[in-house]
Amino acid sequence: MPQTAPSTELHAQTRQRLHQLGLELPTASAPVASYVPATRIGNTVYTSGQLPHENGVLAGTGKVGADVTVEEASTLAATCVLNALAAVSGMGNLDHARIVKAVVFVASAAGFNAQPAVANGASNLLLDIFGGRGDHARSAVGVAELPLNAPVEVELIVEFS
Amino acid sequence: MPQTAPSTELHAQTRQRLHQLGLELPTASAPVASYVPATRIGNTVYTSGQLPHENGVLAGTGKVGADVTVEEASTLAATCVLNALAAVSGMGNLDHARIVKAVVFVASAAGFNAQPAVANGASNLLLDIFGGRGDHARSAVGVAELPLNAPVEVELIVEFS
Amino acid sequence: MPQTAPSTELHAQTRQRLHQLGLELPTASAPVASYVPATRIGNTVYTSGQLPHENGVLAGTGKVGADVTVEEASTLAATCVLNALAAVSGMGNLDHARIVKAVVFVASAAGFNAQPAVANGASNLLLDIFGGRGDHARSAVGVAELPLNAPVEVELIVEFS
Repeated sequence: MPQTAPSTELHAQTRQRLHQLGLELPTASAPVASYVPATRIGNTVYTSGQLPHENGVLAGTGKVGADVTVEEASTLAATCVLNALAAVSGMGNLDHARIVKAVVFVASAAGFNAQPAVANGASNLLLDIFGGRGDHARSAVGVAELPLNAPVEVELIVEFS
Repeated sequence: MPQTAPSTELHAQTRQRLHQLGLELPTASAPVASYVPATRIGNTVYTSGQLPHENGVLAGTGKVGADVTVEEASTLAATCVLNALAAVSGMGNLDHARIVKAVVFVASAAGFNAQPAVANGASNLLLDIFGGRGDHARSAVGVAELPLNAPVEVELIVEFS
Repeated sequence: MPQTAPSTELHAQTRQRLHQLGLELPTASAPVASYVPATRIGNTVYTSGQLPHENGVLAGTGKVGADVTVEEASTLAATCVLNALAAVSGMGNLDHARIVKAVVFVASAAGFNAQPAVANGASNLLLDIFGGRGDHARSAVGVAELPLNAPVEVELIVEFS
Protein backbone atom coordinates (compact mmCIF):
# COMPACT_ATOMS: atom_id res chain seq x y z
CA MET A 1 0.00 0.00 0.00
CA PRO A 2 1.50 3.33 -0.95
CA GLN A 3 2.57 5.58 1.89
CA THR A 4 0.59 8.80 2.26
CA ALA A 5 2.53 11.59 0.57
CA PRO A 6 4.24 13.57 3.34
CA SER A 7 3.23 16.86 1.75
CA THR A 8 -0.43 16.21 2.49
CA GLU A 9 0.10 15.32 6.16
CA LEU A 10 -0.60 17.91 8.80
CA HIS A 11 2.61 19.81 9.74
CA ALA A 12 4.61 17.63 7.31
CA GLN A 13 6.90 20.35 5.98
CA THR A 14 7.37 21.87 9.41
CA ARG A 15 8.24 18.51 10.95
CA GLN A 16 10.70 17.86 8.12
CA ARG A 17 12.36 21.23 8.68
CA LEU A 18 12.55 20.60 12.44
CA HIS A 19 14.11 17.21 11.69
CA GLN A 20 16.75 18.93 9.52
CA LEU A 21 17.49 21.20 12.51
CA GLY A 22 17.84 18.16 14.77
CA LEU A 23 14.61 19.00 16.57
CA GLU A 24 11.14 17.59 16.87
CA LEU A 25 7.73 18.96 17.74
CA PRO A 26 6.97 18.19 21.40
CA THR A 27 3.64 16.75 22.42
CA ALA A 28 1.38 19.63 23.37
CA SER A 29 1.11 19.78 27.12
CA ALA A 30 -2.17 18.44 28.43
CA PRO A 31 -4.67 21.20 29.03
CA VAL A 32 -4.80 22.14 32.69
CA ALA A 33 -7.98 22.91 34.54
CA SER A 34 -8.16 26.66 34.27
CA TYR A 35 -6.80 27.64 30.88
CA VAL A 36 -5.86 26.15 27.50
CA PRO A 37 -2.54 26.04 25.57
CA ALA A 38 -3.86 28.18 22.72
CA THR A 39 -7.02 29.78 21.37
CA ARG A 40 -8.02 30.70 17.83
CA ILE A 41 -10.17 33.59 16.55
CA GLY A 42 -10.70 33.36 12.82
CA ASN A 43 -7.21 32.68 11.50
CA THR A 44 -5.36 34.16 14.46
CA VAL A 45 -3.95 31.97 17.24
CA TYR A 46 -2.84 33.18 20.65
CA THR A 47 -0.68 30.87 22.74
CA SER A 48 -0.41 30.78 26.48
CA GLY A 49 2.94 31.81 27.90
CA GLN A 50 5.27 28.85 27.40
CA LEU A 51 8.02 27.73 29.77
CA PRO A 52 11.13 25.77 28.73
CA HIS A 53 9.75 22.35 29.59
CA GLU A 54 11.35 19.28 28.04
CA ASN A 55 9.42 16.06 28.60
CA GLY A 56 7.50 17.74 31.38
CA VAL A 57 10.55 18.99 33.28
CA LEU A 58 11.95 22.53 33.24
CA ALA A 59 15.24 22.48 31.32
CA GLY A 60 16.66 25.19 33.56
CA THR A 61 15.81 27.50 36.44
CA GLY A 62 17.09 30.77 37.91
CA LYS A 63 17.80 34.33 36.85
CA VAL A 64 19.57 35.14 33.62
CA GLY A 65 22.75 37.08 34.32
CA ALA A 66 23.27 35.31 37.63
CA ASP A 67 22.34 31.62 37.63
CA VAL A 68 21.90 31.21 33.88
CA THR A 69 24.13 32.48 31.06
CA VAL A 70 22.89 34.30 27.99
CA GLU A 71 23.77 31.29 25.86
CA GLU A 72 21.85 28.90 28.10
CA ALA A 73 18.89 31.25 28.25
CA SER A 74 18.88 31.63 24.47
CA THR A 75 18.63 27.86 24.12
CA LEU A 76 15.83 27.80 26.68
CA ALA A 77 13.97 30.47 24.71
CA ALA A 78 14.13 28.15 21.68
CA THR A 79 12.66 25.37 23.82
CA CYS A 80 9.80 27.69 24.78
CA VAL A 81 9.18 28.26 21.05
CA LEU A 82 8.96 24.52 20.39
CA ASN A 83 6.37 24.24 23.14
CA ALA A 84 4.48 27.22 21.72
CA LEU A 85 4.46 25.57 18.29
CA ALA A 86 3.15 22.36 19.86
CA ALA A 87 0.29 24.43 21.27
CA VAL A 88 -0.30 26.10 17.90
CA SER A 89 -0.23 22.75 16.10
CA GLY A 90 -3.50 21.83 17.77
CA MET A 91 -5.19 24.84 16.18
CA GLY A 92 -4.24 24.43 12.50
CA ASN A 93 -1.61 23.26 10.02
CA LEU A 94 1.84 24.60 10.94
CA ASP A 95 2.81 24.35 7.26
CA HIS A 96 0.46 27.29 6.66
CA ALA A 97 1.44 29.29 9.75
CA ARG A 98 2.86 32.78 9.74
CA ILE A 99 4.46 34.11 12.92
CA VAL A 100 3.06 37.54 13.77
CA LYS A 101 4.37 38.45 17.22
CA ALA A 102 6.58 37.01 19.95
CA VAL A 103 6.82 38.34 23.48
CA VAL A 104 9.86 37.07 25.37
CA PHE A 105 9.88 37.55 29.13
CA VAL A 106 13.34 37.07 30.64
CA ALA A 107 13.74 36.55 34.42
CA SER A 108 16.60 38.98 34.88
CA ALA A 109 19.20 39.45 37.57
CA ALA A 110 19.69 43.07 38.69
CA GLY A 111 21.67 44.92 36.04
CA PHE A 112 21.15 42.32 33.31
CA ASN A 113 20.15 44.09 30.09
CA ALA A 114 20.87 41.62 27.29
CA GLN A 115 17.26 40.47 26.97
CA PRO A 116 17.47 40.80 23.14
CA ALA A 117 20.33 38.30 23.00
CA VAL A 118 18.21 35.85 24.96
CA ALA A 119 15.18 36.52 22.78
CA ASN A 120 17.25 35.86 19.65
CA GLY A 121 17.18 32.19 20.61
CA ALA A 122 13.43 32.29 20.06
CA SER A 123 13.51 34.53 16.99
CA ASN A 124 16.27 32.68 15.18
CA LEU A 125 14.55 29.35 15.62
CA LEU A 126 11.33 30.79 14.20
CA LEU A 127 13.25 32.03 11.16
CA ASP A 128 15.08 28.72 10.83
CA ILE A 129 11.80 26.82 10.80
CA PHE A 130 9.52 29.12 8.85
CA GLY A 131 11.80 31.24 6.68
CA GLY A 132 9.97 34.34 5.43
CA ARG A 133 6.81 33.19 7.18
CA GLY A 134 8.80 33.47 10.40
CA ASP A 135 9.30 37.25 10.18
CA HIS A 136 7.73 38.52 13.40
CA ALA A 137 7.43 41.58 15.58
CA ARG A 138 8.98 41.06 19.01
CA SER A 139 9.07 42.50 22.48
CA ALA A 140 11.81 41.43 24.90
CA VAL A 141 11.29 42.39 28.53
CA GLY A 142 13.20 41.68 31.74
CA VAL A 143 10.90 40.59 34.56
CA ALA A 144 11.41 39.95 38.26
CA GLU A 145 10.20 36.38 38.57
CA LEU A 146 8.65 33.75 36.33
CA PRO A 147 6.50 30.70 37.17
CA LEU A 148 8.45 27.79 38.69
CA ASN A 149 11.59 29.96 38.65
CA ALA A 150 11.85 29.54 34.87
CA PRO A 151 14.46 31.81 33.23
CA VAL A 152 12.35 32.51 30.12
CA GLU A 153 8.71 32.56 29.05
CA VAL A 154 7.54 33.04 25.45
CA GLU A 155 4.09 33.73 23.99
CA LEU A 156 3.24 33.84 20.28
CA ILE A 157 0.59 35.25 18.00
CA VAL A 158 0.35 33.19 14.80
CA GLU A 159 -1.81 33.49 11.69
CA PHE A 160 -2.97 30.63 9.50
CA SER A 161 -3.47 31.28 5.79
CA MET B 1 -47.20 46.23 31.90
CA PRO B 2 -45.21 43.06 31.30
CA GLN B 3 -41.61 43.09 32.39
CA THR B 4 -39.03 42.85 29.61
CA ALA B 5 -37.89 39.24 29.40
CA PRO B 6 -34.45 39.06 31.06
CA SER B 7 -33.05 36.96 28.22
CA THR B 8 -33.28 39.88 25.83
CA GLU B 9 -31.54 42.38 28.11
CA LEU B 10 -27.91 43.17 27.50
CA HIS B 11 -25.59 40.97 29.64
CA ALA B 12 -28.68 39.28 31.19
CA GLN B 13 -27.31 35.73 31.29
CA THR B 14 -23.92 36.92 32.44
CA ARG B 15 -25.42 39.03 35.23
CA GLN B 16 -27.53 36.08 36.30
CA ARG B 17 -24.50 33.81 36.42
CA LEU B 18 -22.54 36.41 38.40
CA HIS B 19 -25.49 36.65 40.80
CA GLN B 20 -25.38 32.87 41.29
CA LEU B 21 -21.69 33.24 42.14
CA GLY B 22 -22.51 35.97 44.67
CA LEU B 23 -20.92 38.63 42.45
CA GLU B 24 -22.08 41.56 40.38
CA LEU B 25 -20.71 43.46 37.43
CA PRO B 26 -18.97 46.63 38.66
CA THR B 27 -19.68 49.96 37.04
CA ALA B 28 -17.05 50.48 34.36
CA SER B 29 -14.53 52.98 35.63
CA ALA B 30 -14.96 56.43 34.13
CA PRO B 31 -12.68 56.93 31.15
CA VAL B 32 -9.60 58.88 32.17
CA ALA B 33 -8.02 61.57 30.07
CA SER B 34 -5.38 59.70 28.19
CA TYR B 35 -6.73 56.25 27.44
CA VAL B 36 -9.96 54.24 27.45
CA PRO B 37 -11.04 51.11 29.37
CA ALA B 38 -11.36 49.01 26.21
CA THR B 39 -11.25 49.22 22.42
CA ARG B 40 -12.90 47.09 19.78
CA ILE B 41 -11.69 46.13 16.27
CA GLY B 42 -14.31 44.17 14.40
CA ASN B 43 -15.43 41.58 16.95
CA THR B 44 -12.25 41.66 19.03
CA VAL B 45 -12.01 43.69 22.24
CA TYR B 46 -8.80 44.64 24.03
CA THR B 47 -9.05 45.83 27.63
CA SER B 48 -6.69 48.12 29.42
CA GLY B 49 -4.74 46.55 32.27
CA GLN B 50 -7.16 46.30 35.20
CA LEU B 51 -6.25 46.72 38.85
CA PRO B 52 -8.19 45.19 41.77
CA HIS B 53 -10.34 48.23 42.48
CA GLU B 54 -13.56 47.79 44.46
CA ASN B 55 -15.79 50.86 44.51
CA GLY B 56 -12.85 52.97 43.40
CA VAL B 57 -10.46 51.76 46.10
CA LEU B 58 -7.69 49.18 45.69
CA ALA B 59 -8.73 46.02 47.55
CA GLY B 60 -5.11 45.29 48.45
CA THR B 61 -1.55 46.52 47.98
CA GLY B 62 1.97 45.13 48.20
CA LYS B 63 4.05 42.28 46.83
CA VAL B 64 2.73 38.77 46.56
CA GLY B 65 4.89 36.40 48.56
CA ALA B 66 5.72 39.08 51.13
CA ASP B 67 2.83 41.43 51.95
CA VAL B 68 0.07 39.47 50.22
CA THR B 69 -0.63 35.72 50.29
CA VAL B 70 -1.32 33.59 47.24
CA GLU B 71 -4.92 33.18 48.37
CA GLU B 72 -5.42 36.91 48.78
CA ALA B 73 -3.77 37.63 45.45
CA SER B 74 -5.90 35.02 43.72
CA THR B 75 -9.03 36.78 45.00
CA LEU B 76 -7.63 40.11 43.83
CA ALA B 77 -7.00 38.63 40.37
CA ALA B 78 -10.70 37.73 40.24
CA THR B 79 -11.55 41.33 41.16
CA CYS B 80 -9.38 42.50 38.24
CA VAL B 81 -11.39 40.19 35.96
CA LEU B 82 -14.67 41.72 37.11
CA ASN B 83 -13.31 45.16 36.29
CA ALA B 84 -12.10 43.92 32.91
CA LEU B 85 -15.57 42.53 32.18
CA ALA B 86 -17.09 45.87 33.15
CA ALA B 87 -14.82 47.45 30.55
CA VAL B 88 -15.77 44.82 27.97
CA SER B 89 -19.49 45.26 28.73
CA GLY B 90 -19.33 48.72 27.18
CA MET B 91 -18.18 47.21 23.86
CA GLY B 92 -20.81 44.49 23.28
CA ASN B 93 -23.10 41.92 24.88
CA LEU B 94 -21.26 39.82 27.47
CA ASP B 95 -23.74 37.01 26.84
CA HIS B 96 -22.08 36.57 23.44
CA ALA B 97 -18.49 37.01 24.63
CA ARG B 98 -15.73 34.46 24.28
CA ILE B 99 -12.55 34.91 26.31
CA VAL B 100 -9.48 34.60 24.05
CA LYS B 101 -6.47 35.59 26.15
CA ALA B 102 -5.64 36.76 29.65
CA VAL B 103 -2.34 38.23 30.75
CA VAL B 104 -1.85 38.27 34.51
CA PHE B 105 0.94 40.44 35.88
CA VAL B 106 1.81 39.59 39.50
CA ALA B 107 3.86 42.05 41.60
CA SER B 108 6.23 39.47 43.03
CA ALA B 109 8.51 39.43 46.06
CA ALA B 110 12.00 38.09 45.36
CA GLY B 111 11.86 34.32 45.04
CA PHE B 112 8.09 34.14 44.61
CA ASN B 113 7.29 31.80 41.72
CA ALA B 114 3.66 30.77 42.21
CA GLN B 115 2.31 33.25 39.66
CA PRO B 116 0.11 30.53 38.10
CA ALA B 117 -1.67 29.94 41.41
CA VAL B 118 -2.44 33.66 41.58
CA ALA B 119 -3.56 33.74 37.96
CA ASN B 120 -5.92 30.82 38.61
CA GLY B 121 -8.10 33.27 40.52
CA ALA B 122 -8.66 35.08 37.24
CA SER B 123 -8.93 31.97 35.08
CA ASN B 124 -11.30 30.08 37.35
CA LEU B 125 -13.68 33.01 37.57
CA LEU B 126 -13.72 33.29 33.77
CA LEU B 127 -14.61 29.60 33.53
CA ASP B 128 -17.21 29.92 36.30
CA ILE B 129 -18.92 32.76 34.46
CA PHE B 130 -18.57 31.74 30.83
CA GLY B 131 -18.19 27.95 30.87
CA GLY B 132 -16.79 26.72 27.54
CA ARG B 133 -16.77 30.29 26.22
CA GLY B 134 -14.33 31.07 29.03
CA ASP B 135 -11.57 28.76 27.72
CA HIS B 136 -8.64 31.12 27.24
CA ALA B 137 -4.91 31.22 26.59
CA ARG B 138 -3.00 32.77 29.47
CA SER B 139 0.36 34.24 30.36
CA ALA B 140 1.31 34.69 34.01
CA VAL B 141 4.34 36.86 34.70
CA GLY B 142 6.02 38.15 37.87
CA VAL B 143 6.85 41.84 37.66
CA ALA B 144 8.77 44.22 39.87
CA GLU B 145 6.15 46.89 40.55
CA LEU B 146 2.60 47.65 39.50
CA PRO B 147 0.67 50.94 39.43
CA LEU B 148 -0.43 52.19 42.89
CA ASN B 149 1.43 49.23 44.46
CA ALA B 150 -1.31 46.87 43.28
CA PRO B 151 -0.44 43.17 43.71
CA VAL B 152 -2.08 42.08 40.45
CA GLU B 153 -3.01 43.52 37.04
CA VAL B 154 -5.04 41.65 34.41
CA GLU B 155 -5.71 42.41 30.74
CA LEU B 156 -8.10 40.48 28.48
CA ILE B 157 -8.69 39.89 24.80
CA VAL B 158 -12.33 38.98 24.17
CA GLU B 159 -14.27 38.11 21.01
CA PHE B 160 -17.94 38.79 20.41
CA SER B 161 -19.91 36.39 18.22
CA MET C 1 4.61 71.39 -12.95
CA PRO C 2 2.16 71.50 -10.07
CA GLN C 3 3.28 70.05 -6.81
CA THR C 4 1.50 66.90 -5.69
CA ALA C 5 -1.23 67.90 -3.25
CA PRO C 6 0.03 67.11 0.26
CA SER C 7 -3.27 65.47 1.21
CA THR C 8 -2.63 62.62 -1.19
CA GLU C 9 0.87 61.86 0.07
CA LEU C 10 1.35 58.94 2.41
CA HIS C 11 1.22 60.06 6.09
CA ALA C 12 0.71 63.70 4.97
CA GLN C 13 -1.80 64.69 7.64
CA THR C 14 0.08 62.84 10.34
CA ARG C 15 3.37 64.49 9.38
CA GLN C 16 1.64 67.88 9.40
CA ARG C 17 0.22 67.26 12.86
CA LEU C 18 3.63 66.12 14.14
CA HIS C 19 5.14 69.26 12.67
CA GLN C 20 2.59 71.36 14.58
CA LEU C 21 3.69 69.55 17.75
CA GLY C 22 7.34 70.32 16.95
CA LEU C 23 8.05 66.68 16.16
CA GLU C 24 8.86 64.60 13.13
CA LEU C 25 8.50 60.98 12.18
CA PRO C 26 11.84 59.20 12.72
CA THR C 27 13.27 56.94 10.07
CA ALA C 28 12.16 53.41 10.84
CA SER C 29 15.05 51.51 12.33
CA ALA C 30 16.64 49.12 9.88
CA PRO C 31 15.27 45.61 10.30
CA VAL C 32 17.66 43.49 12.34
CA ALA C 33 18.46 39.92 11.54
CA SER C 34 16.05 38.06 13.74
CA TYR C 35 12.85 40.08 13.83
CA VAL C 36 11.09 42.95 12.09
CA PRO C 37 9.86 46.37 13.36
CA ALA C 38 6.21 45.54 12.70
CA THR C 39 3.94 42.93 11.13
CA ARG C 40 0.49 43.24 9.61
CA ILE C 41 -2.41 40.72 9.55
CA GLY C 42 -5.30 42.04 7.52
CA ASN C 43 -5.72 45.59 8.79
CA THR C 44 -4.08 45.00 12.16
CA VAL C 45 -0.45 45.96 12.80
CA TYR C 46 1.67 44.74 15.72
CA THR C 47 4.88 46.63 16.50
CA SER C 48 7.96 45.27 18.16
CA GLY C 49 8.73 46.72 21.57
CA GLN C 50 10.25 50.14 20.95
CA LEU C 51 13.01 51.76 23.01
CA PRO C 52 13.57 55.53 23.31
CA HIS C 53 16.17 55.77 20.58
CA GLU C 54 16.87 59.16 18.99
CA ASN C 55 19.08 59.01 15.90
CA GLY C 56 20.17 55.55 16.90
CA VAL C 57 21.18 56.43 20.46
CA LEU C 58 19.16 55.79 23.62
CA ALA C 59 17.87 59.15 24.92
CA GLY C 60 18.18 57.94 28.51
CA THR C 61 19.06 54.95 30.65
CA GLY C 62 18.40 53.69 34.16
CA LYS C 63 15.51 52.95 36.48
CA VAL C 64 12.56 55.28 36.82
CA GLY C 65 12.21 56.45 40.39
CA ALA C 66 15.97 56.30 40.98
CA ASP C 67 18.08 57.38 37.98
CA VAL C 68 15.27 58.85 35.89
CA THR C 69 12.41 61.13 36.97
CA VAL C 70 8.77 60.61 36.07
CA GLU C 71 8.90 63.67 33.82
CA GLU C 72 11.98 62.42 31.99
CA ALA C 73 10.50 58.95 31.63
CA SER C 74 7.23 60.38 30.32
CA THR C 75 9.17 62.18 27.59
CA LEU C 76 11.06 58.99 26.80
CA ALA C 77 7.76 57.12 26.50
CA ALA C 78 6.71 59.66 23.86
CA THR C 79 9.98 58.98 22.02
CA CYS C 80 9.15 55.27 22.05
CA VAL C 81 5.78 56.12 20.49
CA LEU C 82 7.45 58.04 17.66
CA ASN C 83 9.63 55.04 16.95
CA ALA C 84 6.59 52.76 17.04
CA LEU C 85 4.81 55.02 14.55
CA ALA C 86 7.86 54.91 12.30
CA ALA C 87 7.57 51.13 12.37
CA VAL C 88 3.83 51.30 11.67
CA SER C 89 4.38 53.76 8.81
CA GLY C 90 6.02 50.99 6.80
CA MET C 91 2.82 48.92 6.99
CA GLY C 92 0.18 51.44 5.83
CA ASN C 93 -0.93 55.07 5.74
CA LEU C 94 -0.73 56.64 9.21
CA ASP C 95 -3.45 59.07 8.16
CA HIS C 96 -5.86 56.12 8.27
CA ALA C 97 -4.47 54.58 11.45
CA ARG C 98 -6.44 53.97 14.62
CA ILE C 99 -4.55 53.16 17.82
CA VAL C 100 -6.01 50.04 19.48
CA LYS C 101 -3.68 49.13 22.34
CA ALA C 102 -0.47 50.34 23.96
CA VAL C 103 1.59 48.36 26.44
CA VAL C 104 4.09 50.48 28.37
CA PHE C 105 6.84 48.65 30.25
CA VAL C 106 8.58 50.88 32.80
CA ALA C 107 11.95 49.82 34.28
CA SER C 108 11.09 50.60 37.88
CA ALA C 109 13.18 51.22 40.97
CA ALA C 110 11.98 49.35 44.07
CA GLY C 111 8.90 51.08 45.44
CA PHE C 112 8.20 53.11 42.29
CA ASN C 113 4.49 52.86 41.47
CA ALA C 114 3.75 55.82 39.19
CA GLN C 115 3.89 53.77 35.98
CA PRO C 116 0.65 55.40 34.75
CA ALA C 117 2.21 58.86 34.93
CA VAL C 118 5.09 57.62 32.79
CA ALA C 119 2.73 55.91 30.37
CA ASN C 120 0.76 59.14 30.00
CA GLY C 121 3.68 60.47 27.98
CA ALA C 122 2.92 57.81 25.40
CA SER C 123 -0.86 58.10 25.62
CA ASN C 124 -1.03 61.87 25.47
CA LEU C 125 1.17 61.99 22.38
CA LEU C 126 -1.06 59.45 20.65
CA LEU C 127 -4.10 61.62 21.42
CA ASP C 128 -2.27 64.77 20.34
CA ILE C 129 -1.40 63.21 16.99
CA PHE C 130 -4.51 61.16 16.20
CA GLY C 131 -7.35 62.82 18.15
CA GLY C 132 -10.31 60.45 18.44
CA ARG C 133 -8.45 57.84 16.38
CA GLY C 134 -5.88 57.86 19.18
CA ASP C 135 -8.26 56.49 21.84
CA HIS C 136 -6.56 53.31 22.98
CA ALA C 137 -6.62 50.64 25.65
CA ARG C 138 -3.44 50.60 27.72
CA SER C 139 -1.49 48.47 30.15
CA ALA C 140 1.27 50.04 32.24
CA VAL C 141 3.59 47.63 34.03
CA GLY C 142 6.74 48.06 36.12
CA VAL C 143 9.47 45.63 35.12
CA ALA C 144 12.84 44.73 36.57
CA GLU C 145 15.13 45.43 33.60
CA LEU C 146 14.77 46.49 29.99
CA PRO C 147 17.09 45.98 27.00
CA LEU C 148 20.17 48.24 27.00
CA ASN C 149 19.08 49.58 30.42
CA ALA C 150 16.32 51.61 28.74
CA PRO C 151 13.86 53.18 31.20
CA VAL C 152 10.79 52.58 29.00
CA GLU C 153 9.64 50.24 26.24
CA VAL C 154 6.35 50.66 24.32
CA GLU C 155 4.52 48.31 21.93
CA LEU C 156 1.42 49.21 19.92
CA ILE C 157 -1.44 47.48 18.16
CA VAL C 158 -2.81 49.66 15.36
CA GLU C 159 -5.65 49.21 12.87
CA PHE C 160 -5.80 50.68 9.39
CA SER C 161 -9.20 51.57 7.97
